[in-house]
Amino acid sequence: MKRILTGDRPTGRLHLGHYVGTLENRVKLQDTYETFVLIADYHMLTTRLDRLDEIGQNVRDVVLDDLSVGIDPEKTTIYLQSLVPETAEIHLYFSMLVTVGRAQRIPTLKEQMRDHEITQPSYGLLGYPILQAADILCVKGDLVPVGRDQESHIELTREIARRFNELFGPVFPVPEALIPSDRLLPGVDGASKMGKSLGNAIDLADDPETVKQRVMRMYTDPERIHATDPGRVEGNPVFVYHDAFNDDRAEVDDLKERYRTGRVGDVEVKKRLVAALERFLGPIRERRARYARDPKIVEEIVRSGSERARAEARRTLHEMRAAMRLDYFGE
Amino acid sequence: MKRILTGDRPTGRLHLGHYVGTLENRVKLQDTYETFVLIADYHMLTTRLDRLDEIGQNVRDVVLDDLSVGIDPEKTTIYLQSLVPETAEIHLYFSMLVTVGRAQRIPTLKEQMRDHEITQPSYGLLGYPILQAADILCVKGDLVPVGRDQESHIELTREIARRFNELFGPVFPVPEALIPSDRLLPGVDGASKMGKSLGNAIDLADDPETVKQRVMRMYTDPERIHATDPGRVEGNPVFVYHDAFNDDRAEVDDLKERYRTGRVGDVEVKKRLVAALERFLGPIRERRARYARDPKIVEEIVRSGSERARAEARRTLHEMRAAMRLDYFGE
Repeated sequence: MKRILTGDRPTGRLHLGHYVGTLENRVKLQDTYETFVLIADYHMLTTRLDRLDEIGQNVRDVVLDDLSVGIDPEKTTIYLQSLVPETAEIHLYFSMLVTVGRAQRIPTLKEQMRDHEITQPSYGLLGYPILQAADILCVKGDLVPVGRDQESHIELTREIARRFNELFGPVFPVPEALIPSDRLLPGVDGASKMGKSLGNAIDLADDPETVKQRVMRMYTDPERIHATDPGRVEGNPVFVYHDAFNDDRAEVDDLKERYRTGRVGDVEVKKRLVAALERFLGPIRERRARYARDPKIVEEIVRSGSERARAEARRTLHEMRAAMRLDYFGE
Repeated sequence: MKRILTGDRPTGRLHLGHYVGTLENRVKLQDTYETFVLIADYHMLTTRLDRLDEIGQNVRDVVLDDLSVGIDPEKTTIYLQSLVPETAEIHLYFSMLVTVGRAQRIPTLKEQMRDHEITQPSYGLLGYPILQAADILCVKGDLVPVGRDQESHIELTREIARRFNELFGPVFPVPEALIPSDRLLPGVDGASKMGKSLGNAIDLADDPETVKQRVMRMYTDPERIHATDPGRVEGNPVFVYHDAFNDDRAEVDDLKERYRTGRVGDVEVKKRLVAALERFLGPIRERRARYARDPKIVEEIVRSGSERARAEARRTLHEMRAAMRLDYFGE
């Protein structure tokens, strides 16, 4: 059974965009693969040193979000990076296998600096993709579902795995990126991507009232003034959302048809979307509430997942040290 | 009681130059300070990835050398860096506190690259001084005896300690460099510095025959042809060695006087040096042999020292994580 490594930086609650791009896929994959879901808290240090006090709550929120959409802790190992400190040691070894120049050529560095308004990157930020390689290889991940923007990191991970194997012997699989179809959910403001920091998101944990408000103010076809004007369905966020979340396909087809021919107002389309989202989010919200009622269970899931991941990392580290001839005292 | 952190990269057996520059001082300091002697094996990875198989023996040799000159494992904690893997995690945290530009400005980087014929530094080599900061601060060293060439690393360590304290609260002492008097022992070839890689060293573990041969071929005053020529004593390696190792001061004074006035040959001066070195090295060699007979004891010293250092590092890490608010689950 091939192994998948995936995960998130604990930046806060996950939203519908995460669901469409990642979580939906993650839930499916857990039946076919041995899945590890990493909560990458070390990575938060690369860009948000001034807001470390938020991480604790964010970790809990991300775990709740994962559980609420159907990640099953019996099938999937959910774990916290900093509870697997072997990652840091493996990262240290890997840091000897990558030149500074190679690290500097990774395109995401500049993006991160721009996004976080960083003028002088820290040594740790430069090493971010090497730390990611340690995340993937410490559990010997075969497949890594990532967005296109992260492909360069997987390429580096592959180089590190190959270089280590070549220098010291075959310890690592050479993992492959699993690029999901480029389904991006637009923001409620019509921006091409939903993003927490863009303020255009609907969170998985949002209450019905918030969801309703966000949908009712949602961006639609800007060229349509009256309900009797023929409207554009393609690329219209309200319909992208209907396509993504409305389980009543007949209703969606009917709405589209009437929208195109000027026989339905935005308000009705949106009200139907609110109802559809409630059908979709209701069970998610319920599952979330069930877990949230008992923080001990969430903690226990993270702890036992981290113990499982840690056992893998320890085994990997042991093999690495033996291959590198660093097991002087037989350990 | 102030704490000292000092140590060596396990590059092989230590020689008389190490004794004069470092070990002699180290033996004295252990009575006044709580001393930690680090065997820095992680650091070997920054420059010698192709020769990792030598490290195991080198570690044992360095420990034997330390013990042989009088480092007392009851007073001093001798420990192996890789047996304190918390160092790697602390290093990861520190790597967020140093900019790439700052790391690149440390002068030893260029020296290391030149010495090891490295054209493209690895990310890990660039981070070498940050790892050293982790070594020092994980045991909260107050004082760090280093050569002048390493002063820039201590300066970086001080910056990291201050920055951490400023961002997260007072966890670390701001350590100070303890620069020993600039006593350099020349090589047997007359080069200003004894160095293993220069092939001009007398090892602490060399046998009497080797010591004799090296001394008898030793470089002296090149302008003196006959034993009756007046010779130069100052800067003459044979006399530098007499000054450093001959416990019979009257003999040394007498030899100097006769050398200056052309009343003694090189051979006699050298023979007396051989005898003096034997008086000096005899007990060292004996102590070394005693420990070497039982490798288990050496291993036990390193293991228990590493456990002690590791307990310190764990405590430090715990404080760090609490200060950074990363103790989400109460650990």
